[in-house]
Amino acid sequence: MPITTVGLDADDTLWHNETIFRLTQARFLDLLAPHADGPTTESRLADVERRNLRLYGYGIKGFTLSMIETAMELTGGDAPASVVREILAAGREMIAHPVETLPGVDEALADLSERYRLVLITKGDLLDQERKLAASGLGDLFAAVEIVSEKDRGTYDRVFARHGTGAENAVMAGNSVKSDVIPAIEAGAFGVHIPYHVTWAHEVAEPPVDHPRFGLLETIADLPAWIAARA
Amino acid sequence: MPITTVGLDADDTLWHNETIFRLTQARFLDLLAPHADGPTTESRLADVERRNLRLYGYGIKGFTLSMIETAMELTGGDAPASVVREILAAGREMIAHPVETLPGVDEALADLSERYRLVLITKGDLLDQERKLAASGLGDLFAAVEIVSEKDRGTYDRVFARHGTGAENAVMAGNSVKSDVIPAIEAGAFGVHIPYHVTWAHEVAEPPVDHPRFGLLETIADLPAWIAARA
Repeated sequence: MPITTVGLDADDTLWHNETIFRLTQARFLDLLAPHADGPTTESRLADVERRNLRLYGYGIKGFTLSMIETAMELTGGDAPASVVREILAAGREMIAHPVETLPGVDEALADLSERYRLVLITKGDLLDQERKLAASGLGDLFAAVEIVSEKDRGTYDRVFARHGTGAENAVMAGNSVKSDVIPAIEAGAFGVHIPYHVTWAHEVAEPPVDHPRFGLLETIADLPAWIAARA
Repeated sequence: MPITTVGLDADDTLWHNETIFRLTQARFLDLLAPHADGPTTESRLADVERRNLRLYGYGIKGFTLSMIETAMELTGGDAPASVVREILAAGREMIAHPVETLPGVDEALADLSERYRLVLITKGDLLDQERKLAASGLGDLFAAVEIVSEKDRGTYDRVFARHGTGAENAVMAGNSVKSDVIPAIEAGAFGVHIPYHVTWAHEVAEPPVDHPRFGLLETIADLPAWIAARA
């Protein structure tokens, strides 16, 4: 079974993302410290985010709105204007944050792009993801970019049919077992987990360690050799 | 030159959208009335939206954040929490607002879909546009859906090459001269303006009335006959 196509997740696979969310969240906990202790604020924010995911989807704008809503809840509906202003500013800074690619990404992608069709498959705000890709300097290595609202089996079926020769001939690699690995394997592709040092609570899942199409790599630098060994 | 592909804008072309923004904006002006008169609030909101477009892109989440920011500016940075809560609620209600298709849309699309490949080409929040398409019941009539961050000449080049036989064989129809008509004609397609009764300030532009590939229709019900006359 030849491999023709490699799908890659973006946030926390190609560049840092969750650390930026965590830094903003730490700032948010400080901001709310006069009103609630850290663990309370953190767990309330997670609840609000979960509730809003259906409405807002993924990305910084929805996260910013969820922080404001959480601040209202934790202050009995009476958050000081200074807190709201700080949250707005924190959201804008996240959007403007420079893109830092992860170690080994540039070399691995240059190598892979010579042998396979590379497809970027990512969730999040449309404009925000396009901006990060442009800032990363990696844009030219991808044959296609798919920014999607959800990553399920149907997503991978569709994307690998459109941009490659079907999921059977594809590898999907990313830091989320739930979004990048399991549904890609369900669609018939290889699914490679490349963990990032922190994972968003809503993305945690058990890896299918016994599946013949599952792989676990410590770094994206090992991906070209892993794929070559499958061919 | 046969026409194979018809691109259609979504908001204010297939279903009401700007009226929902206007209703929310009217509610926002009322909310800020103790702090600023209507015209001042309206013009300040337009300024904030323009400034934020580069950061937030199009859609309800960015609009909600811009309303909060405007409220802060108009209250000297001290907007009451009740105002912020109202704005959050208004944003959520916009997202949950039922989709009402415009008169003639269902019949026109059913007719067009039998003769051409239909492609939905729209800006806005990814999840929000997908949800509206699903709620409209029109999803099955489209061969493809492209939710994009900007509509320029390159967008139409790319979309009509991917989903049709190139822009030369395509018609793009929508309510925005700036986004739907001019760049589509620049790409080589026909551009048909179907005005909506209100237009967002940032989308106003002069129609290219003398261009041989320009069309102006009062209603989408006239689109099938207009295209047939071009073939």
